[in-house]
Amino acid sequence: MIQFDRSGVEPFLDETALTTALSGARDAHERLVGGTGEGAEMLGWRALLSDPNDALLGDIDELASEIRSRADVFLCIGIGGSYLGARATIDALTPYFPDGGGPEVLFAGHQMSGAYLRGLLAHLEGRSVYVNVISKSGTTLEPAIAFRVVREWLGRRFDDVARRIIVTTDPETGALNRLAREAGYRRYVIPPDIGGRFSVLAPVGLLPIAVAGVDIRSLFYGAVDARRSLEAPDHNSAVEYAATRFLLHEAGFATELLAVFEPRLSGLGAWWQQLFGESEGKEHKGLFPATVLYSTDLHSLGQYVQDGRRNLIETFLLPDDDGGGLVIPAAPDSGDGLEYLAGRTLSYVNRKAAEGTIRAHRGGGVPVQTLRIPSVSPTSIGELIYFFEHAAGVSGYLLGVNPFDQPGVEAYKAEMFSLLGRP
Amino acid sequence: MIQFDRSGVEPFLDETALTTALSGARDAHERLVGGTGEGAEMLGWRALLSDPNDALLGDIDELASEIRSRADVFLCIGIGGSYLGARATIDALTPYFPDGGGPEVLFAGHQMSGAYLRGLLAHLEGRSVYVNVISKSGTTLEPAIAFRVVREWLGRRFDDVARRIIVTTDPETGALNRLAREAGYRRYVIPPDIGGRFSVLAPVGLLPIAVAGVDIRSLFYGAVDARRSLEAPDHNSAVEYAATRFLLHEAGFATELLAVFEPRLSGLGAWWQQLFGESEGKEHKGLFPATVLYSTDLHSLGQYVQDGRRNLIETFLLPDDDGGGLVIPAAPDSGDGLEYLAGRTLSYVNRKAAEGTIRAHRGGGVPVQTLRIPSVSPTSIGELIYFFEHAAGVSGYLLGVNPFDQPGVEAYKAEMFSLLGRP
Repeated sequence: MIQFDRSGVEPFLDETALTTALSGARDAHERLVGGTGEGAEMLGWRALLSDPNDALLGDIDELASEIRSRADVFLCIGIGGSYLGARATIDALTPYFPDGGGPEVLFAGHQMSGAYLRGLLAHLEGRSVYVNVISKSGTTLEPAIAFRVVREWLGRRFDDVARRIIVTTDPETGALNRLAREAGYRRYVIPPDIGGRFSVLAPVGLLPIAVAGVDIRSLFYGAVDARRSLEAPDHNSAVEYAATRFLLHEAGFATELLAVFEPRLSGLGAWWQQLFGESEGKEHKGLFPATVLYSTDLHSLGQYVQDGRRNLIETFLLPDDDGGGLVIPAAPDSGDGLEYLAGRTLSYVNRKAAEGTIRAHRGGGVPVQTLRIPSVSPTSIGELIYFFEHAAGVSGYLLGVNPFDQPGVEAYKAEMFSLLGRP
Repeated sequence: MIQFDRSGVEPFLDETALTTALSGARDAHERLVGGTGEGAEMLGWRALLSDPNDALLGDIDELASEIRSRADVFLCIGIGGSYLGARATIDALTPYFPDGGGPEVLFAGHQMSGAYLRGLLAHLEGRSVYVNVISKSGTTLEPAIAFRVVREWLGRRFDDVARRIIVTTDPETGALNRLAREAGYRRYVIPPDIGGRFSVLAPVGLLPIAVAGVDIRSLFYGAVDARRSLEAPDHNSAVEYAATRFLLHEAGFATELLAVFEPRLSGLGAWWQQLFGESEGKEHKGLFPATVLYSTDLHSLGQYVQDGRRNLIETFLLPDDDGGGLVIPAAPDSGDGLEYLAGRTLSYVNRKAAEGTIRAHRGGGVPVQTLRIPSVSPTSIGELIYFFEHAAGVSGYLLGVNPFDQPGVEAYKAEMFSLLGRP
């Protein structure tokens, strides 16, 4: 399971304050698991895991197999929680350079670049394309525009469009339901009590993840196990993580950096940013969540983290086994001074880089905490997903906000629709 | 040229303080252009543009043509400034989905993932590979390890390795010079008075950018023009940008978000993060630089930006022409409520999204400023590169730090090498 180490933040915390915060976090945890806190009508992401729907997992796997055998490209149309969870999990659990064993999984409707969408259509030309459009209402601007464009394109190229489009949407209402009924698209349901950023283990995320070739059963049951092991309020790593970051927030720290050393974990950072940014960032509260990929960013943001304003905290997400067993060859002629590393693995060196960075940043005055996962596997990623979801809930309650709404997201939409002259 | 609009930050600034800061920024500008400030021995990035070396540009173009005709993959090995500038410019100026008109440009040595490097080697199998290793000293850990692995791999596959490796390094010293002499690799020089984060318009960036098919002459002369137009201290947009962000820094704002609406500009955000983070983040000073890609991130970090802690400032980087002329088709059966947008371009809608976001975030209490560039073209990107470099210099002087050093980058290296037991 996930190991949380807070020793690197303790020098920044008052012991009494920590005891109080831990106690508050345990209360918040009780409200979360008891369903007595604010926003408790949106706890479907917990219910999902208490009673696993194996039939649904099997059905998704079956459709994924069909798509994997028939599609060259699987295009996911969605934004926010209908994009980031699938993207993060696929990035983490599929090869850096896909070997062509399944369809290319691409995304659209997650922004409004016309240049991107035009290039995408040209790229799809001549290929067998399946599309999953993911939207509760079916009227969210970005995916709805992309779906208009892509549906028209499909219609001009394939006779069997109905079998090529899968909608993931509200159980009853919304534009996509009517369209799916009329056109005969296959359909998955987004439970109404699950918000976008908590929906990766619903069909929203599971279908794209399965099509990408990931074992969704291990992923899902990893989360089921994490839910079970995080039921108790004591020695609960998610509760502790929520408590320490709450105290650092109260002490005036501005930004939490989620630091990874393995590029394929960057997408999880982007998902985590939505999870915490949207759950906490209200009523002028919350740590600003940012992701750094080391050692890349040690050579860009590292200077700032080491010596800049002392308002950052850093959470290192480190797999014990990063899968990086490539051996550094001997090259005595190279003059690079690295002959002492010949025979070592990149994994070994990368781990030492992480340890060295933790020491250096602690020494520079950054509160540092670590989350260790056993490996970058479906089970571990499933556990991590639930861990962060649980922690986000506890954390929101600690801050005194509803962790399950996102009223501020409407502000830009209102201004934009007014400028667009929406009838 | 670049248009800077600070009207959205003025409500947060005292008029007298602004006058003083602008005057201070003009002084800082005079020190920069006069070469009288701290770190003036590292102003080669300005000298480079005052006397353009057309022969060098021609030589790089010629080698790039050779590589484009012979290579399937061009692998750039470098980190920090030897990676981000080329990456940013290539991302901005090449198609989202390359059409196979030139080699695939890939990167290595910008992190230490063994899984990545192993996957990369498998991906290279059977292809014609050219490599550009970019490192002043030749002993920087990440690129040196990657170069060891890749050089051994090349040696086992090609008879003409010497012509397939190009080094970009110090004019005289360093491990790569000796190796290049002995093995007969072609070589480009990194002027010793140009720091990594200011080196994109030296061969460091120009060779990879040219191989990617970008017109480096337009890029370079865009920067030349920007340098010329930013010589005068008055009505100087870089000076104004430095002044307003300095004042917001002094007022306690913690983080500057560079916001783009076109995904291919995200890489420039990463380059900008290094430029400002490393130039300013010292002596416990500086704004933390973060990049957001909208509208993707409006559905993740948007809630925080709208309603979270009021310690963010936002700089929108917007092209007047984003190249997104794709038309939204009519689809009266879709039920998505967007029929009023049929016939509009995505570009139009994306622009309205940007305007709406600016209004919403201003309304939410975020100081907002905008940088407008005419288009996403080599000339505009060249101008933008110089604009930001100039502003980073002025900004560092305003803060009272040396904008051209990066002492904090050594801290993690010292800890890491001690853990690795370097002799």
